[in-house]
Amino acid sequence: MKNFKLAVIQLDSQEDKKLNLEKTEAFIREARANGADMVALPEVFNVIDKSKTPAENIPDGESTQLLIKLAKELGLYIHGGSIGEENPDGDKRYNTTVFIDPNGEILAKYRKLHLFDIDMPDGTKKRESDRIAPGQEIVSVETDLANIGLTICYDLRFPELFRTLALNGAELIFVPANFTMPTGKDHWEALLRARAIENTVYIAAPGQIGTKTGNNPSFGSSMIIDPWGTVIARASEREEVIYADIDAAYLQRVRQLIPCLQNRRSDVYSLEEVK
Amino acid sequence: MKNFKLAVIQLDSQEDKKLNLEKTEAFIREARANGADMVALPEVFNVIDKSKTPAENIPDGESTQLLIKLAKELGLYIHGGSIGEENPDGDKRYNTTVFIDPNGEILAKYRKLHLFDIDMPDGTKKRESDRIAPGQEIVSVETDLANIGLTICYDLRFPELFRTLALNGAELIFVPANFTMPTGKDHWEALLRARAIENTVYIAAPGQIGTKTGNNPSFGSSMIIDPWGTVIARASEREEVIYADIDAAYLQRVRQLIPCLQNRRSDVYSLEEVK
Repeated sequence: MKNFKLAVIQLDSQEDKKLNLEKTEAFIREARANGADMVALPEVFNVIDKSKTPAENIPDGESTQLLIKLAKELGLYIHGGSIGEENPDGDKRYNTTVFIDPNGEILAKYRKLHLFDIDMPDGTKKRESDRIAPGQEIVSVETDLANIGLTICYDLRFPELFRTLALNGAELIFVPANFTMPTGKDHWEALLRARAIENTVYIAAPGQIGTKTGNNPSFGSSMIIDPWGTVIARASEREEVIYADIDAAYLQRVRQLIPCLQNRRSDVYSLEEVK
Repeated sequence: MKNFKLAVIQLDSQEDKKLNLEKTEAFIREARANGADMVALPEVFNVIDKSKTPAENIPDGESTQLLIKLAKELGLYIHGGSIGEENPDGDKRYNTTVFIDPNGEILAKYRKLHLFDIDMPDGTKKRESDRIAPGQEIVSVETDLANIGLTICYDLRFPELFRTLALNGAELIFVPANFTMPTGKDHWEALLRARAIENTVYIAAPGQIGTKTGNNPSFGSSMIIDPWGTVIARASEREEVIYADIDAAYLQRVRQLIPCLQNRRSDVYSLEEVK
């Protein structure tokens, strides 16, 4: 792991994909101009997920191609929040994030594992799985700056995923999201801070802000959290870029002070990837 | 699960065991007089753990006998925070909690699983395992009020334990503790709230307050948290009893709104007790 400057972009993505991509490009250029080595985007940065806009192929679709072009031109890492990805095997799209290096190579692709499926007592059903196909794999990637773990939004409620990423070596975990107000105000920060503290990792959480058609207002409050659990950068109530210095020595120091990754009782419980 | 009134006692236990037990008894009687059906004590409520006081046999020692007597006389459930328990097989004590029913029966006994063992870069070692023997079992118990899960202090940093308790049926999890200021101020509430939210359970966290010989000041801030993650009772900067109404229907409602226990991906990761 090395020291580097991380930028997290908070967006108000709407149904106009062209406009969303223009804003994305402008913010990535701004982040690079301010010295960022790595830039992270929120969930559905290119177009909100209930829009009629078709899903895209990865890597051939225009959103991924834009990120590849910018990563190469500007010489920085880009975490592509998430986009709706075409599914060659079915009519449900994936909710997919890509991690791109400064050569424009896609180092990792992660499809959201946990889908929000709920049966209410009144018979109402809300089923994310009606329109999204779930991923099947836990994904992290070693880069020359840090070992990066990938998650998306609702995944935040599943400590098993974050623990597995940390045990696999993750030092920085991304949580691109579109939490809305009711759960955002009560759950977002506590869960993000707990994930940082219990795994002694940096957490980068780029969120959506604003109100999307048919939804509660999005919660925003994008943040970067250090391995002690301190919120070291926090977005205000608008589209913007926030920055933090990622400090390799500090991560090691916290891991020595709080050695919870070593003090686990794997003789009493086992947490394993199913392969 | 039924509705009931839960009391959490915050104590400043010191080296005088007789005084600690007198205060414990007085607060339990006060809690019962105020209508509590279940009372929870902090870690090392009977005497602070670095004292020279010998460990006790469970159930024959005076601290456990006092709780049995009070549970029976007052007709309530008592969660015995923790005490140093004699270890017939070695010279290291256990850090042990008992859960007693209104008949004075010990329904469950839990020995702290996770010990804080740390090697600092300067060569310093802090090893809880030098004086405490670790438990070997995850413990929960079905009662006529709720299914109860047991943990102690440092266990809070291990989401695997809380998730396993919830998957085993826990609706209320106890976290008796003696967090000190430096970690308490930054980690205590975020971790407790996350455990409630991610497992949709009630959390009862009775803590120590005051300064114990040779330690940083204890953090206090005992709390009761509902399954949505709201802190519904919080102690002030003194020894006292706090109360909350545990609501069975509310727990079910939160579990329907946020079905994260059902939306786990056990086809992608497995979390199992090792027996």
